[in-house]
Amino acid sequence: MGKRIGRYTVSFSQKIKVVSFASVGGKKEAEGPLGQEFDKIFYDPMAGQKTWEQAESAFQREAVSIALSKGNIRAEDLDFAFAGDLLNQCISSSFALESFPFPYLGQYGACSTMAQCLLMGAITLESTVGRNCLCVTSSNFCSAERQYRFPLLYGGQRTPTAQWTVSGAGSVVLSSEFTGKAPVVTAATVGRIVDLGVTDANNMGAAMAPAAAQTIKDFFDDTKESVDSFDAVFTGDLGQVGSQLLYELLEKEGLSLRNNHIDCGLLIYDSKKQDVHAGGSGCGCAATVLCSHILPRLKSGVYNRVLFVATGALLSPTSGMQGNSIPSVAHLVELCAE
Amino acid sequence: MGKRIGRYTVSFSQKIKVVSFASVGGKKEAEGPLGQEFDKIFYDPMAGQKTWEQAESAFQREAVSIALSKGNIRAEDLDFAFAGDLLNQCISSSFALESFPFPYLGQYGACSTMAQCLLMGAITLESTVGRNCLCVTSSNFCSAERQYRFPLLYGGQRTPTAQWTVSGAGSVVLSSEFTGKAPVVTAATVGRIVDLGVTDANNMGAAMAPAAAQTIKDFFDDTKESVDSFDAVFTGDLGQVGSQLLYELLEKEGLSLRNNHIDCGLLIYDSKKQDVHAGGSGCGCAATVLCSHILPRLKSGVYNRVLFVATGALLSPTSGMQGNSIPSVAHLVELCAE
Repeated sequence: MGKRIGRYTVSFSQKIKVVSFASVGGKKEAEGPLGQEFDKIFYDPMAGQKTWEQAESAFQREAVSIALSKGNIRAEDLDFAFAGDLLNQCISSSFALESFPFPYLGQYGACSTMAQCLLMGAITLESTVGRNCLCVTSSNFCSAERQYRFPLLYGGQRTPTAQWTVSGAGSVVLSSEFTGKAPVVTAATVGRIVDLGVTDANNMGAAMAPAAAQTIKDFFDDTKESVDSFDAVFTGDLGQVGSQLLYELLEKEGLSLRNNHIDCGLLIYDSKKQDVHAGGSGCGCAATVLCSHILPRLKSGVYNRVLFVATGALLSPTSGMQGNSIPSVAHLVELCAE
Repeated sequence: MGKRIGRYTVSFSQKIKVVSFASVGGKKEAEGPLGQEFDKIFYDPMAGQKTWEQAESAFQREAVSIALSKGNIRAEDLDFAFAGDLLNQCISSSFALESFPFPYLGQYGACSTMAQCLLMGAITLESTVGRNCLCVTSSNFCSAERQYRFPLLYGGQRTPTAQWTVSGAGSVVLSSEFTGKAPVVTAATVGRIVDLGVTDANNMGAAMAPAAAQTIKDFFDDTKESVDSFDAVFTGDLGQVGSQLLYELLEKEGLSLRNNHIDCGLLIYDSKKQDVHAGGSGCGCAATVLCSHILPRLKSGVYNRVLFVATGALLSPTSGMQGNSIPSVAHLVELCAE
């Protein structure tokens, strides 16, 4: 049976395995350091659709189809899908998944969505009400800029702390009945909302770092593990500003992450050549790095044990314009090679 | 252990009990047939806040506080909170819950959110990774009108098929360790996305009825139960138009719901006196009716066994303006008196 370790961490008794996964990116992601590792690149930013929002759905649909196909899994065999995204009312997920026959549970965790979907999927399989489920999320530079900041044609200048929303989608199929070798979801720490009063919507790293620090501290407090037991601690999209703040916040708590921390937002683009300012961001950032970089390394044995900590800034343009600060959350998932 | 019944329905082996619940409404809800049954009424539509969005958060916060207080439950004893709402990026939930100390998992199911939170909570408790969790959702007439349709001051005319978004919040505390008598969550059917091509954002009943019909049919197909075994089948907010369509769709499948169907959207307002056109709607509609009307009757023994089927229209103003149809989903929860 699943159990609680300390106050915020849960562990799974079943072998909940990542039996398939896929990552889909756009042209800019193809030009980055992980370009060769994506399953599919859409060089057309519209992905053959009429709007950016529909393009984002197409990316997500493709990520699902590829994961099913790579794992030789029929859509009918999935018991549930956990999905979400950054667009208002999570429309890229709804429109992506309406063509599939499985039950759908929309998740909202902003850029923490992939970690949230993984932990909800793992909890659901642990309960034995299902045996196979899908986790998928996406983001798109054009749809996110228009919704959260300015229409692209306005040509707004980006600040140095701004991050570049990844155009991409990542999908994972979890199974509790697979008997082969595959990465395993072993534990998770569910985040609390943290709001230290940051109001700058162009500095998401600063808003989210305290949530990441709290969840990471919760995990190590609960499990009494040492940071060195992990090959890497991945954060979702703190970028340069947020990563630095994360180190400082955790050092105050006696935890040093500098040796084995990797931020997906700093990994996905080449900061010297790609002009993304403080790094990549978006639900698709952590999700594509998970599916193009982390999971393949867990599968091949390069990594033995990692933490995947995705952070989300839970603001809307309305709450921002009303002068509210940015509440954030971070969810953590422990992934182990089998 | 939890198990699957047929393709879409799950049942719980643990006694997952509704140990406390609370409903909060506004002035119009107080004037409706359930007015006396709410735990608290805010006669000030701003609830002492500066914006409607903040008012919605205040409603939700109050619903949580009252449920904790009625059940004599400490916030620290809740393992997880499942919450969501209609506002972009679910901000009424994030800002409502940031002052509480429990882990947060944002859910997006539009007006189906309360049923989704209940089933996610039940699955989570079934997995034994937690023993107590909170489910909460809200909606607000003013924040919803501005976001989905027109600013109120514009004075737009409402069509006859339009529904009135409930200003209200409902919260439920589920527990697997409570030994007293309380209503029990016994089974759930997770919905699939259904999209029959309805594009009229002023006719949500028509968009959502096919999803409700599918999920209700899935439940009866999976369980082989008879409709007569239930004191009532509640839908969330189909209103007059959607309820009629639901009967017609289910009759084609050989199921008659006319004798024991109740729509929360038709129960919450007096259609003759309150000028709400096709009925009430919003996440707060099903949630407040659940917490002010259904759960008290399960507790007192008036009802023995009911189905609570909340429907959600998964559109955004953007997808609507881009000419897309309205994907919908319905989630079903079976509730029994102990």
